[in-house]
This record gives sequence, structure tokens and C-alpha cells, in this order.
Amino acid sequence: MMKEQNISSSVIKRLPRYYRFLGELKKQGISRISSGELASRMKLTASQIRQDLNCFGGFGQQGYGYNVEMLYDKIADILGINIPTKAIMMGVGKLGTVVAENMDFNKLGFNLIGAFDIDPNVVGKQVASIKVSHLDELKKFCKTNKPDAAFICLPDAAVKETAQKLTELGITGFWNFSHHDIALEHPEVAVENVHFSDTLMRLSFKIKNS
Amino acid sequence: MMKEQNISSSVIKRLPRYYRFLGELKKQGISRISSGELASRMKLTASQIRQDLNCFGGFGQQGYGYNVEMLYDKIADILGINIPTKAIMMGVGKLGTVVAENMDFNKLGFNLIGAFDIDPNVVGKQVASIKVSHLDELKKFCKTNKPDAAFICLPDAAVKETAQKLTELGITGFWNFSHHDIALEHPEVAVENVHFSDTLMRLSFKIKNS
Repeated sequence: MMKEQNISSSVIKRLPRYYRFLGELKKQGISRISSGELASRMKLTASQIRQDLNCFGGFGQQGYGYNVEMLYDKIADILGINIPTKAIMMGVGKLGTVVAENMDFNKLGFNLIGAFDIDPNVVGKQVASIKVSHLDELKKFCKTNKPDAAFICLPDAAVKETAQKLTELGITGFWNFSHHDIALEHPEVAVENVHFSDTLMRLSFKIKNS
Repeated sequence: MMKEQNISSSVIKRLPRYYRFLGELKKQGISRISSGELASRMKLTASQIRQDLNCFGGFGQQGYGYNVEMLYDKIADILGINIPTKAIMMGVGKLGTVVAENMDFNKLGFNLIGAFDIDPNVVGKQVASIKVSHLDELKKFCKTNKPDAAFICLPDAAVKETAQKLTELGITGFWNFSHHDIALEHPEVAVENVHFSDTLMRLSFKIKNS
């Protein structure tokens, strides 16, 4: 586990995009790329790219460019996705099922080890090769398996109580699909929100103001 | 349709969150709120809030605070969500179905008027009270109904060609669930991405560096 406290949060925000682009380049068999060429593919400026990537050490060499594979691996390392984080899914309704079955968690640094629901029609079924457990089993499961992250696919109204329970059980990171603002009540944990509505409202703005 | 070109993109980015918080206040019957109180609920500074909300005119009055309903309506107005944008869904697999059936599009400024797929098991079925059409019908549908936005729930590999087709048919806004970077090839249209993987990688970073 590495600490990179000196990297600004806006650079961190851009890292997954660099990672995706570098992954594409790797697939295409491109082993090195200049900041200018990468900039043009990503529609950024070369100086922005150099500034961002300089944070991770000297991977760019004048007249050579960036070593794609080294940079790709370095970003994976910084993101911490080479060391899987144990995660559980809370809520295995339609959304939870789609998320569990369609994400390649291992490639993204997570290992899904459990799933919980209260719906008798859902408890006991298999999702992404995990058997869904009843919420009553959560405490015992966490004490035994010590997951670090929870994926929240619950109705908004259920999130406050569940988040409280989960933090008490040692969960330190939330991937939150609900509208409940977990970070407000739990500033001590890491939260990433997937707010469908927010992006849709911003799209509305962009369409109407373009 | 209003133009608010002078509002910075970072303020625009925060607007949906203000909108959600003000909606909550309305539900709780709160009719006015000071910047300090709103700041404390949203974990922002009062000066940040004043700065952001000043962009929309004089809704805050010293010693009175903000009129919750007026501010809520004003933000809806700026986001353009009171005037529905006609939208079509491209791809009605599991993800598309979940999205279509669980989002309250009308409240978010959109009117879903069509859905398209190529899978014979999907074409003809009802989703969110829309009958799924075959992709072959797209051109005729767009010429007749003139949708402005498309919700992209397709496999990555199908997006490039579809986005090209859609822009030619007059689509000016994309809500993109795929990893294909539509904005790169079509800088002329509005794009909002819902990148599940990016948020998950950032969560990995946060957990490992907290």
C-alpha cells in the first residue's frame, strides 16, 4: 500500500481516464507515446499531461516520450487496484444485480465476497457467483471476513441506518448508488457516489445552453 | 430556455447537489435558510455558498437568508429541467432496462419517447411504458419525433458507429454509460458520462490512502 498524499485531488480524479487511455494504447501494441500525441488523443494540452504525469516520477523522457506499460502499471499502483479490497454488496435488487454481474471488480481493485438483502425472493439466489445472504448474517460475516468496502444499491431510505451499521463493522469505503449523502454523516470514511440524476440534470443544462 | 453563460462550470457541477438539498428542505417544510445553516448541512463554507448562489441573482438577504422555494425553482430553471428534452434510449439490455424503469426522467428534465435495440428478444417488449423498436426504425423515428438526447446503454464496441449515426440524426446530448469517449469524436455535442469503473478506481485510491 502506497501513500501519495502529495498528488492533488484533481489529478487523482483524472487518473482513471489516463488509465483507460493507456490500456487502449497497450491493446493497440503502442509501447511509447509523446505527451503531445497523448494530449491530442485525450483532447488535453501536452503541458497539462506533463504536469499531471510528473507527479508520479520521471516516466517521460525528452525525445522519447512515455513508456506506456510502465506508466499504466504505475497508475494502477497509485490507484491501489493491484491489491484487491474485499467488498460486499448491500441490496441485490435490479440495480445491484446489474452492477454485480457486469463489473469486472478484480480488474478494478475489488474482490466481491458477499451480498446482502432482506427480500425473501432474493436471499439465497446466486449473483456473480455469490450467494445472497440475509441482512441478519451481516455482523457475523463482517467479523469473520473483514470486508473493507460496501457497494450500496439500497433504496435511499435504508441507507442511513445501514451505513451506520457498516461503519461500526469496520467498512471504510462506500461505493454509493443511492442519493443519501453518506459522507456527511461519516466524514471518516471514503465515499464515491454514482449519482445518475446529477449527471442527467447537468446534461439538461448543457443541452439547453449549447 | 435561458442562457447563463457567465456561470462557471464548477458552479454548474455543484448545482444538482444544491437542488437535491433544497428539495429536502422543501419536503421538511423549511421555507428559508441562512447560508450558514445550509453550509453546515452541506459541509461547505458559508462563503462558498454565498459565492455560488450569488451567480443566480439576489436570493439571499442579510438577516433573512435564502427563500428555499424560490432558490429551488431558480436552480431548476437554470438546469433547464422544467422544459422537457425529448430523449431516446439506445440499448435495452439489463442496464438499459434498470435505468429506464428506475429513473424519474420527467423530474430531471427529460421525456423518454423511444427505445431501440437489435436483440430479437428485446425488440417489441415494453420498458417504462415504451415499446422497444428495432434499430432499423431509428432514422424514421428521429425524423418524425425529433429527439434531442440519447441515453447510451450499449456495449462499448457499438457506441462509435451509433454516436455518429445519432449526431447525423440531430441528437445534441448524450447520457453515456459506455466507456467509449463520445466527446472526443463529437466535440459539438453535450456529453455526460456515467463511468462506473472510474468511480470504483477512485474509491480504491481513497481507501488505500486514507
